[in-house]
Amino acid sequence: MSLPTELTATWHITAAGCDAQGRLPLTTLTQRVIELATDHANILGVGYTRLMADGCAWVLSRISFEMERMPAMHEDYTMTTWIESFNRHFSERNFEVRSGDAEGPVIGHIRTVWVAIDIRSRRPADLSGIASLAETVSARRCPIEPQPKLREPEDSDGATVTAGRFRATDIDFNRHVTTVSYIRMILDQLPLEEYDRCNCSRLDVAFRHEAYFGEESETVTSTDRNGAYITAIRSGDRERTFCIARQIMTPRDNFN
Amino acid sequence: MSLPTELTATWHITAAGCDAQGRLPLTTLTQRVIELATDHANILGVGYTRLMADGCAWVLSRISFEMERMPAMHEDYTMTTWIESFNRHFSERNFEVRSGDAEGPVIGHIRTVWVAIDIRSRRPADLSGIASLAETVSARRCPIEPQPKLREPEDSDGATVTAGRFRATDIDFNRHVTTVSYIRMILDQLPLEEYDRCNCSRLDVAFRHEAYFGEESETVTSTDRNGAYITAIRSGDRERTFCIARQIMTPRDNFN
Repeated sequence: MSLPTELTATWHITAAGCDAQGRLPLTTLTQRVIELATDHANILGVGYTRLMADGCAWVLSRISFEMERMPAMHEDYTMTTWIESFNRHFSERNFEVRSGDAEGPVIGHIRTVWVAIDIRSRRPADLSGIASLAETVSARRCPIEPQPKLREPEDSDGATVTAGRFRATDIDFNRHVTTVSYIRMILDQLPLEEYDRCNCSRLDVAFRHEAYFGEESETVTSTDRNGAYITAIRSGDRERTFCIARQIMTPRDNFN
Repeated sequence: MSLPTELTATWHITAAGCDAQGRLPLTTLTQRVIELATDHANILGVGYTRLMADGCAWVLSRISFEMERMPAMHEDYTMTTWIESFNRHFSERNFEVRSGDAEGPVIGHIRTVWVAIDIRSRRPADLSGIASLAETVSARRCPIEPQPKLREPEDSDGATVTAGRFRATDIDFNRHVTTVSYIRMILDQLPLEEYDRCNCSRLDVAFRHEAYFGEESETVTSTDRNGAYITAIRSGDRERTFCIARQIMTPRDNFN
């Protein structure tokens, strides 16, 4: 029996599930990406349980969203995921987002890169043990650019700096800070008015070091020469960078 | 055609959707409660769109959870909702939570009280216009105690005080701070170790005043004479209380 190289799911957006602009929140979309990836990995026999047997767990290393628009209140949206590449160091998994069902118009894409870590050493693990996953690589391409190399933001006078501390609800079963918590912190560096005025048309996040419960954080945001927001979430002592993000905001037209 | 007095839905918990203890997070359960309530209200013709026609919106006024245990990783869980009472001031809506499908064992209940607000004046609205909703009140009872009167925490020396500010992702389409954000702030007053050691067996939250983007907050937690945690989320100047919570933590036995 051949394994399914793609997995598709559809969700509905209730009024209560919307952000302040009446759209699907990027944090919820992130959660769906992780869930769909997890479900597909389980179907392919390389999910949580299989990796745990080797003392390993999947960890998201990079994520890039490029959205023409976000699904809106009372809409359905459909995501399809597939594996673009696999080697013993990492796996690239892409997502297509459509408005409505699987026949609806394409409204965005998401690229992710996953590594496995040894859950005791917290070091990258070798994926050779699940090399059969290479057979499920799809020939399907993803039309958005891969993630560029992300640079630390400039600590300029105009930078927005937010101090924080990671709390109980930031922590997942791997006992580290969740992707959704980081993305919430990144989005929260901009004021509500910016989201009223603009869509987030592209968001790239690279995860560098794990953060744990109780650690202090400093989140710094400045703009690059193209007007994109560059954010770093660092340890309180600035010794380690947990993640770096580039966020492109595009003024909303009347139809969006 | 008679309207359905109950609505039931089932969800699955992936590894990625778990909290640090491998359980369904209470924040996710809260989101499901609001979604299922919204879906049922839409089916009954008293949803977002109907209330908006009168310039009104549903607002959650009180929520009480009582859980024997939380659904765990890789489990399904099923919630059924029904309306217990309805008058022109508020509506009481209950939820039963089962492990697995609708035939699975009952593991908890949730009580909610909803009011409608006029979206311009932000004052309580009269629900007489949808009085037909009274026909959908169910005779089914909810076995957990209604929410007791919640008192402000004592500002004792041992109180945990956290300063914050409401940010873009805390705001929903009603342009006020979401229930999920408040519940996250309440849960985050306790250290991770407390959730490793204990289950949250009962959580009561009463919502008092709306909070908006950019407002500063002060969250204060102390214990009452029974050892329950009492939390108030107040404005930074302590003039208004946004919500008050009582959280009962029960040591976890070996089977839980």
